[in-house]
Amino acid sequence: MKRYAIIVAGGSGTRMGSAIPKQYLEIGGMPILMHTLSVFNFLDTEIDLILVIPESDFTFWENLCSQFDFKVPHKLVKGGNSRFQSVKNGLDSIGDIKGTVAIHDGVRPFVNPKVIEESFLKAEEFGSAIAVVDLKDSIRKLTEDGKSFFQDRQYFRLVQTPQTFLLDKIKKAYEVPELKHFTDDATVFEHQGWQVFLIPGNPGNLKITSPEDLEYASFLIQKKNK
Amino acid sequence: MKRYAIIVAGGSGTRMGSAIPKQYLEIGGMPILMHTLSVFNFLDTEIDLILVIPESDFTFWENLCSQFDFKVPHKLVKGGNSRFQSVKNGLDSIGDIKGTVAIHDGVRPFVNPKVIEESFLKAEEFGSAIAVVDLKDSIRKLTEDGKSFFQDRQYFRLVQTPQTFLLDKIKKAYEVPELKHFTDDATVFEHQGWQVFLIPGNPGNLKITSPEDLEYASFLIQKKNK
Repeated sequence: MKRYAIIVAGGSGTRMGSAIPKQYLEIGGMPILMHTLSVFNFLDTEIDLILVIPESDFTFWENLCSQFDFKVPHKLVKGGNSRFQSVKNGLDSIGDIKGTVAIHDGVRPFVNPKVIEESFLKAEEFGSAIAVVDLKDSIRKLTEDGKSFFQDRQYFRLVQTPQTFLLDKIKKAYEVPELKHFTDDATVFEHQGWQVFLIPGNPGNLKITSPEDLEYASFLIQKKNK
Repeated sequence: MKRYAIIVAGGSGTRMGSAIPKQYLEIGGMPILMHTLSVFNFLDTEIDLILVIPESDFTFWENLCSQFDFKVPHKLVKGGNSRFQSVKNGLDSIGDIKGTVAIHDGVRPFVNPKVIEESFLKAEEFGSAIAVVDLKDSIRKLTEDGKSFFQDRQYFRLVQTPQTFLLDKIKKAYEVPELKHFTDDATVFEHQGWQVFLIPGNPGNLKITSPEDLEYASFLIQKKNK
């Protein structure tokens, strides 16, 4: 089955306190996005890579690719006003083909290639495969009136990416108006009344969103390169 | 109001794959536990520090203190067979005094002193103060039949320490047989029918439980010392 990956990086990076959106910042001598694209390419050079970034960044990105002599083949698709719209644009750029598509955050360069592979295999079999990890800390739930209650953490999972799907199903799922609770692709998928299939992600699959994350990411890259 | 802090480090560190329990491992040239004790002492030298470790480690710990010329005053109390028992032993070592007590994981050396101070102030006012942080990732809840559902992460908080209480209340709360869902001090407190008060913790307040955590902790200490 033909495999696609949509790498979503529409963010303007305001949380990073940096003029350059976070996905373009360097860790270990290369922009974060290039690390992320490279993991998918490393796993399987036959995966069609689609990078979704703001249209206004296209020239900047192409210059970055020249500057870093970045050769991993990928298609550029313009982002939308929300993550939902950006993913939808990515999906719309794929024809009506029998295949699977992994949707992945551009700022998660530490995804384990084995997790990506497993997500494709399980999505082929079950229609979807969502990478999740256990909670390390205790968790409490807040009530509307300001109280809070203990929750048994064994019943909860933190959701990461990749979130991988059969192409025809996720394309159909994205043919709806955007809803407020669509925080990821799994929620869009299950809005159709379909259950998502969960797979174990790698706990180190950090989402780089703060200056502290960036420092930690630099530390991890240094360690990896040793 | 008199302030106490119980630093709980009863763990045998089996998850660390190390012969020495994790609380005694060095980061930045000093055992983790000494960093943790130092944060409380740095905030306020008048806080009575109670360190709960296995009785079989007392001599080892005293030798470590000599070796590192560690001068922060603290009382040693023997740990029990569970976190609950260890905390109870710590509480039992305090007389019937009007005061507040912060209960804190020994392997959380990166707690912000401002969080500790805030926890004492709020516990004096509201009876309890539990340090919690927001979730960075989406969260799903599993059902008994293997399904999973989206949860709105804004209603959830990850629980850290310190967990600080009015001494008489938490002492009373600990006068019960241990229950399976007592994963922290907040759950013991609310078993009395009392609501806990939540305060913002610092996201960097890492609980060092794995070799990866230890490496990251070493990195953070190096950064702090620069």
